[in-house]
Amino acid sequence: MISGPYLLYLGEAADPISVKTARGIAQWRPDACIGQRRLPGCEIDLGLADLTYAEAAAAGAKIMVIGDANAGGVLRTSAHPEIIAALEAGLDVASGLHQRLKDVAAIQDTAQRLGRTLHDVRDAPEGLKVGTGKPRAGLRLLTVGTDCSVGKMYTSLALEQEMRARSIPADFKATGQTGVLISGNGIAIDAVVADFISGAVEQLAPARNVPGWDIIEGQGSLFHPSYAGVSLGLLHGAQPHALVLCHEAGRPHIRGLEGRPLPGFAECIDANLAAARLTNPTVRAIGVSVNTSRLDPRERRAFCENLSDTLGLPCQDPLIDGVGQIVDNLIACFEPS
Amino acid sequence: MISGPYLLYLGEAADPISVKTARGIAQWRPDACIGQRRLPGCEIDLGLADLTYAEAAAAGAKIMVIGDANAGGVLRTSAHPEIIAALEAGLDVASGLHQRLKDVAAIQDTAQRLGRTLHDVRDAPEGLKVGTGKPRAGLRLLTVGTDCSVGKMYTSLALEQEMRARSIPADFKATGQTGVLISGNGIAIDAVVADFISGAVEQLAPARNVPGWDIIEGQGSLFHPSYAGVSLGLLHGAQPHALVLCHEAGRPHIRGLEGRPLPGFAECIDANLAAARLTNPTVRAIGVSVNTSRLDPRERRAFCENLSDTLGLPCQDPLIDGVGQIVDNLIACFEPS
Repeated sequence: MISGPYLLYLGEAADPISVKTARGIAQWRPDACIGQRRLPGCEIDLGLADLTYAEAAAAGAKIMVIGDANAGGVLRTSAHPEIIAALEAGLDVASGLHQRLKDVAAIQDTAQRLGRTLHDVRDAPEGLKVGTGKPRAGLRLLTVGTDCSVGKMYTSLALEQEMRARSIPADFKATGQTGVLISGNGIAIDAVVADFISGAVEQLAPARNVPGWDIIEGQGSLFHPSYAGVSLGLLHGAQPHALVLCHEAGRPHIRGLEGRPLPGFAECIDANLAAARLTNPTVRAIGVSVNTSRLDPRERRAFCENLSDTLGLPCQDPLIDGVGQIVDNLIACFEPS
Repeated sequence: MISGPYLLYLGEAADPISVKTARGIAQWRPDACIGQRRLPGCEIDLGLADLTYAEAAAAGAKIMVIGDANAGGVLRTSAHPEIIAALEAGLDVASGLHQRLKDVAAIQDTAQRLGRTLHDVRDAPEGLKVGTGKPRAGLRLLTVGTDCSVGKMYTSLALEQEMRARSIPADFKATGQTGVLISGNGIAIDAVVADFISGAVEQLAPARNVPGWDIIEGQGSLFHPSYAGVSLGLLHGAQPHALVLCHEAGRPHIRGLEGRPLPGFAECIDANLAAARLTNPTVRAIGVSVNTSRLDPRERRAFCENLSDTLGLPCQDPLIDGVGQIVDNLIACFEPS
């Protein structure tokens, strides 16, 4: 369990995508964010107070979160002395990078000397078991995608928020490092040993013996040749009753793989439903969450309406429209009237 | 590279499937197997000499292989003193279990004190990358299954043997611990970090710029809820031109999951082809390899003939009939006449 309060470390970040972890935390846990720490050259501003480590500690921050990431997930060397300074000032440090904090000797030594905690949130829990696929109690919703980085975490959190606003119990279950830092727990599913993908999800969202829903954050896509194994194991382990498909309108090709087209919507929904039926034969698709930010603003509503007509499912941009229609459909499909 | 000669440790194994690692090595590397080591209660006999550790070392054994496995891949505690005794007698020890030999302090300490090597063959290579799905040169065949433990490794090795006998270049690519111990190298694909499943297979069977085939050992099944993520990542990473479906006739349910039926043949072939097309649109199924050992001997031929008629593919029990018809079909489909 990681709970903050947080100081968000942005380093020298110049690229908005590189700070998506920090931005996600600032967006979904604003009360837990005490401030930001930026180095000269940083071009990102999350609108938080710029604090030194001593100021952050004095203001109540407990954990500094490494909020920028580069391709490959390696910790920038410019961050090493900053992390050490934060530890010296009394903060613990959390990171979701592939490269572990504890594997940098100077950081590990400092933390040990001072009795501080290093949270490498991509570390898998000990003692994971293989999945069983055995039916378990409770209702579960999983977000799936036409690709990576299309808004599955955002959509999952928006669904949790909307359902709670309607007094439907809902619990976000994080499967990625940003989600773990937002919700305080979870499992970075892309970092577990391959044999335990579905088992890890069964552990993350075990039998739910109370009303309401587990909202499980999806990862990757069945159509992404780098990550589809993760997506399928997650789909089987989640044993979902409801799927919400996430998509970025206008994306030219599969993320990172120029020339590889995205799947069609119906093809993508059908493939996810077919695979999901292995562990939950009653699974159904209940909506589509579309990031329309690449579209001309005048085209956005038409895009969602056309897609909704084609698929017979509510299609919404969660940033613009919220996810109310998707939750309406969830209720219509699953809640006794 | 691990090459033996081997002493095969069977422990207290009572279940023939639990010793498939030992059996596979005994079958495919008979010249490398010096003997077996069984504890009281063991109900398995591989037909090798029962040797003490001292006798095995004296007879030329270099490595004791942990040849039994339980679900979850944990080393039985009864094996700890045995492994230490083997190390004391002068043997190195190899294991394909998830739990690493080096993580058992008493074993690691003994090996270090004596200068022996512990081969944890499930350790993933350093520096794996995520897969790309980019088309690469060469021809690749992948074995897939209706379930786990249906003969994918056996079939792959039999195909390699048959093709080489016909002067078709063929190279077995091991993806499981037993295959690694048989062939001396490979990657235990179920043990890599989930993000790198397809990338590890791209590294294991990179562009093949020489004639002939890479014969890639399949793992698990798209229809096994514990392991399908591994199977899908492997399928995408293998980028196969040809699939051979493997099956155990008469298996009552998915391995380890009573009550869960096996998929139909056509359903299983179609699902594998559909998924494989993501990275190789020309993929085709070229045969079925059936383990008929559960059937009445009089029913075996009829089972294969009926299945062959139904699917329009050669169906053979590799132990009884070999894999000649499957290789005939591979040649007919892919080799210029």
